[in-house]
Amino acid sequence: MAVNRQLKLAHRPEGRVSLSDFTLEENAPPSLVDGAVLARTRLLSVDPTNRVWMKDVPQYMPPVAIGEVMRSGGLAEVVESRLAGYAPGDLVFGMTGWQDYSVLRPGGALGLMRIPSGLELEPEKFLGVCGPNGVTAWAGIIDVASVSEKDTVLVTAAAGAVGSAAGQIAKIRGARVIGIAGGPGKARKLVEEFGFDAGLDYRAPDLVAQLKAATPKGVDVLFENVGGKIMEAAISRMNPLGRVALSGMISIYNGEAGTRYDWAPIMARRLKVQGFNLIDCGELWPRAVRDLASWVKSGLIRAEETIVDGLEKAPEALNMLFDGANVGKLIVRVS
Amino acid sequence: MAVNRQLKLAHRPEGRVSLSDFTLEENAPPSLVDGAVLARTRLLSVDPTNRVWMKDVPQYMPPVAIGEVMRSGGLAEVVESRLAGYAPGDLVFGMTGWQDYSVLRPGGALGLMRIPSGLELEPEKFLGVCGPNGVTAWAGIIDVASVSEKDTVLVTAAAGAVGSAAGQIAKIRGARVIGIAGGPGKARKLVEEFGFDAGLDYRAPDLVAQLKAATPKGVDVLFENVGGKIMEAAISRMNPLGRVALSGMISIYNGEAGTRYDWAPIMARRLKVQGFNLIDCGELWPRAVRDLASWVKSGLIRAEETIVDGLEKAPEALNMLFDGANVGKLIVRVS
Repeated sequence: MAVNRQLKLAHRPEGRVSLSDFTLEENAPPSLVDGAVLARTRLLSVDPTNRVWMKDVPQYMPPVAIGEVMRSGGLAEVVESRLAGYAPGDLVFGMTGWQDYSVLRPGGALGLMRIPSGLELEPEKFLGVCGPNGVTAWAGIIDVASVSEKDTVLVTAAAGAVGSAAGQIAKIRGARVIGIAGGPGKARKLVEEFGFDAGLDYRAPDLVAQLKAATPKGVDVLFENVGGKIMEAAISRMNPLGRVALSGMISIYNGEAGTRYDWAPIMARRLKVQGFNLIDCGELWPRAVRDLASWVKSGLIRAEETIVDGLEKAPEALNMLFDGANVGKLIVRVS
Repeated sequence: MAVNRQLKLAHRPEGRVSLSDFTLEENAPPSLVDGAVLARTRLLSVDPTNRVWMKDVPQYMPPVAIGEVMRSGGLAEVVESRLAGYAPGDLVFGMTGWQDYSVLRPGGALGLMRIPSGLELEPEKFLGVCGPNGVTAWAGIIDVASVSEKDTVLVTAAAGAVGSAAGQIAKIRGARVIGIAGGPGKARKLVEEFGFDAGLDYRAPDLVAQLKAATPKGVDVLFENVGGKIMEAAISRMNPLGRVALSGMISIYNGEAGTRYDWAPIMARRLKVQGFNLIDCGELWPRAVRDLASWVKSGLIRAEETIVDGLEKAPEALNMLFDGANVGKLIVRVS
């Protein structure tokens, strides 16, 4: 008889998270219902949002309730299916939570997604660059901005998981790619490890002048993760008919920057500014994952993962993320 | 021997324009060059921009120089062609200027456009709702916003030439359409003459409440001509994945409103905000004109023109525009 280990939130942690903030229960797997699959968790995606979900603050989804299984995206294997198109053995992405078994269904924000079969890739890649971050980057570069070899593409927060994938995908499409990241080390890494044409340090006092020098023909596509003054500097370089793929504006989340920026360039230069989010990408997910997997296999995209073993290590792994102790995508292996 | 009457700007007019601000010359038609057509002006489009072109102020195109033929869009008939695909008798739209004959070529801002043949419509329609204003409306509703019967569409400056066409096109696509215009008379006209589902007066003290009541399911598409507070009120009603077709922000041109508006809803609601302009619409022009012509012929779009006869009446006609003395599109018939 299968046992479903579950980590349930015992109380709201302050600061660092530990296993003692959770109760570990062993229960029977949940009952399968029509239109869903029963799936066994293989890998958990460890993301900043996990920490936010533990807090009782206004946010995109409701916070995890006390006594509830900790919410998490994860990669799972279908054990039993009552959903057309899904069979035992299929790999799926879904909101598995910090537990061994979950009942997953399509629809809603980040509902069940099937990993296309036959891609012959290590499972961890489907949480890494062939997972949510990579699909987000693909959506911005390919779907929103239609990047081609004619374009100069600028990526902010370019050393991050989404930004580094976005820049590499733009390079694959033949564009000239410039990234902005924090510190000279990360700026160098953009060029040396990710193959960007130029990397700029946003802390440099002459960033605007450097940006101008690095984009002599202006900017056609901005893949934006930051907002604030860096975004305004980037938009000042944009060419007519440019596209802004607005993936995030992290600088506004913590109140660092205001949210009112100039709309006049949108009109004067006929820009397209489009906010986008993974939660709307269900339809393009399979195509994106196939592209990303083929690029990883052929070495066109560089991606790393740090894997921590054991469900009970999930709280500790979350701290690693904030300590910067991981290289690339951080993952917990459950089974 | 053909004579080319030309109205050349004699000096920069102050306030109202009169024929005495121009010199009327009679010259030989210009010489045709390869890659261009010699065209005889039939109708001139009278637009606010004509008045701006007379002023020595910073603007989209350089001002008309003293001694230069007054610049104007117009409908013309090809007399002689050294351009593949164009033959004598073809109707074209181009920057004819206030004169009988001009040499027109494709490319650049508002370069030569051929009116598709076989549309069997009065020529004035190709400067009116099947001309620049209608094509602009078509571009925003069909190309930028992909309006469908699922959408609630909000149009600002909805009683204007572009806005009224945009609303009618959105109705043809099956959408629910709400317009905002200046004054209760215009607001009523939106419903009674143009078939909008609701018309709002932007001067009403409770505009925001009225807008909310008129859009119980929110707004999916905003066709924006105004900017400022009205635009902010409109954006506050927008649904996730909404599209803003930014056709103009007239309120910012004269300094009435600032140009900094909130970008947070673009990200939070994954909006697409796209500035667009007729000067980029060369490729879609033929398709737009064919659609518009068929809608005019079948009575699906209501459009009016005021025609003033005689090249020498062009300055006076421009005053009519600012006096509000015209109904619908204002046109000068030259030949």
